Amino acid sequence: MPEELASWADGPARAAITAFVQRVTTSGGDGYVAPAERVAVVDNDGTLWTEKPMPIELGFIMRRLAAAAERDPDLRGVQPWKAAVERDHGWLGGAVTRHYAGDDSDLHVLLGGFLQAFAGMSAEDYLAASGEYLRGGTHPTLGRGFRECTFAPMVELLRYLEAHGFTVYIASGGDRDFIRSVSDEIYGIPSERVIGTSNALAYQEDGDGASVVYQAQPDVFDDGPVKAVRIWSRIGRRPILAVGNANGDIQMLEFTGGPRLPALRLAVLHDDEEREAAYTQRADELLDRAHRKGWTVISVRSDWTTVF
Amino acid sequence: MPEELASWADGPARAAITAFVQRVTTSGGDGYVAPAERVAVVDNDGTLWTEKPMPIELGFIMRRLAAAAERDPDLRGVQPWKAAVERDHGWLGGAVTRHYAGDDSDLHVLLGGFLQAFAGMSAEDYLAASGEYLRGGTHPTLGRGFRECTFAPMVELLRYLEAHGFTVYIASGGDRDFIRSVSDEIYGIPSERVIGTSNALAYQEDGDGASVVYQAQPDVFDDGPVKAVRIWSRIGRRPILAVGNANGDIQMLEFTGGPRLPALRLAVLHDDEEREAAYTQRADELLDRAHRKGWTVISVRSDWTTVF
Repeated sequence: MPEELASWADGPARAAITAFVQRVTTSGGDGYVAPAERVAVVDNDGTLWTEKPMPIELGFIMRRLAAAAERDPDLRGVQPWKAAVERDHGWLGGAVTRHYAGDDSDLHVLLGGFLQAFAGMSAEDYLAASGEYLRGGTHPTLGRGFRECTFAPMVELLRYLEAHGFTVYIASGGDRDFIRSVSDEIYGIPSERVIGTSNALAYQEDGDGASVVYQAQPDVFDDGPVKAVRIWSRIGRRPILAVGNANGDIQMLEFTGGPRLPALRLAVLHDDEEREAAYTQRADELLDRAHRKGWTVISVRSDWTTVF
Repeated sequence: MPEELASWADGPARAAITAFVQRVTTSGGDGYVAPAERVAVVDNDGTLWTEKPMPIELGFIMRRLAAAAERDPDLRGVQPWKAAVERDHGWLGGAVTRHYAGDDSDLHVLLGGFLQAFAGMSAEDYLAASGEYLRGGTHPTLGRGFRECTFAPMVELLRYLEAHGFTVYIASGGDRDFIRSVSDEIYGIPSERVIGTSNALAYQEDGDGASVVYQAQPDVFDDGPVKAVRIWSRIGRRPILAVGNANGDIQMLEFTGGPRLPALRLAVLHDDEEREAAYTQRADELLDRAHRKGWTVISVRSDWTTVF
């Protein structure tokens, strides 16, 4: 069985995974879990694919803002369209940095632009546009297609879990429909098993039927405690296995298992500057908790023989 | 194949269903739909099980309100606990009737009670309590266990659709977790395929992990246009087949199919006073639209040889 995890080093992370899977699948054993309850939840950005130097989704949004500024020149002097047209990653990064320093003014400007970027689009048109972006584009620093920015060991883990009766869901702070546009193709996870952040949708009738259409309002930001709530809302079960890489994944990991079910909690540590990136920003509390509570840390450098 | 629909009369409704299923499953035909896109959505109250003389869920809520009034005698003089303790269905019915007449004051009192009835309960405890109610109780007028209040022809339809590669979801205006507590047992539909109304949930940590807990606030009332939006949110696909019985199902039926996919829209008409109930309240617009647009009407009296 472990041979299936071919890109994993013969180390503690792989051992923890295979031991847990053996435990929950051993019929008659005290840790046995019925297949219907073998639910796994996996974060996306930084867990299933790279989020450096910036989340892949941001490029899609920037492109759409730039297109809007093409059509309406008045927007070109106004943020966030100005930054999108000028590819001013400094302004974008600054908005996020200032948010962490307590000043949300630019972040609100940025989010307002995000919401307007897709307002009025039908959900199907959005899926088509994001699919086109992800299939056609190249990652700015890795120089490979976006669909090849997934972590090979993680995709192997999805297959390994499925082969042992697990049902795997993506639980992401990123946009749900953006991920859905390629989730089946790159992860083998169909759209109904993608949970994520969403913008408000409205029902719109035409003569022949109806569509659901993006609104310029946020709906749910699927991060932190909301991840646990949304996992319950969507699945109606607790997961028994969860993988994340950031502080916003802590609550999802805590919610895993519970009084009646065992749990395996995994945290990806990005410590490989050479092959991917080395960073612990927005992961400090997660790593601290993993250390204190004995959660399994996956070191990109030590536990993965292949990254992409 | 049609033999599987044993409780269906050899009439137009069964013919429409079998013709549609044959069309979407005929490989190479112009109406062929790949299995992954064969999504069906089915309403619950009045479609999968009876909603007369009152929704089954209401009894569960009343019992919980009465239990709260047992513990706190001060509540016994206050609505809606008073009505629950006195089993005053007149007050309850009146609150709903006055709502339709434009006076929402008692309905708000009732809803406030509903929300308080479960506040502070973990999602798992709620599931256990509603499962216990549904497994132990007897329907007030039919005199049979709640689990035997499902419509036999509809459960056959679920199996028939699954046998032809469909994935079926429940899309209900009733409470999601209430339905989940028995959905697998009575419908063969697992909790992750139940979409419905929800109260707000909060994440709550204890020393060992965390739970999600019911709050005294509403979250989403899954009816009318919201049904279409929530179907997209949960599935990320349009259904190609939908069954409803009330005006609140119109938008779900309109959203079915679309520019790229065929659709079968089915409306259950309750016209059998002898075997179940005869009523068109809150179904008038649906039936009118079904007539105008050629949607398939399922007559309980004519199309079902067995009801329960």
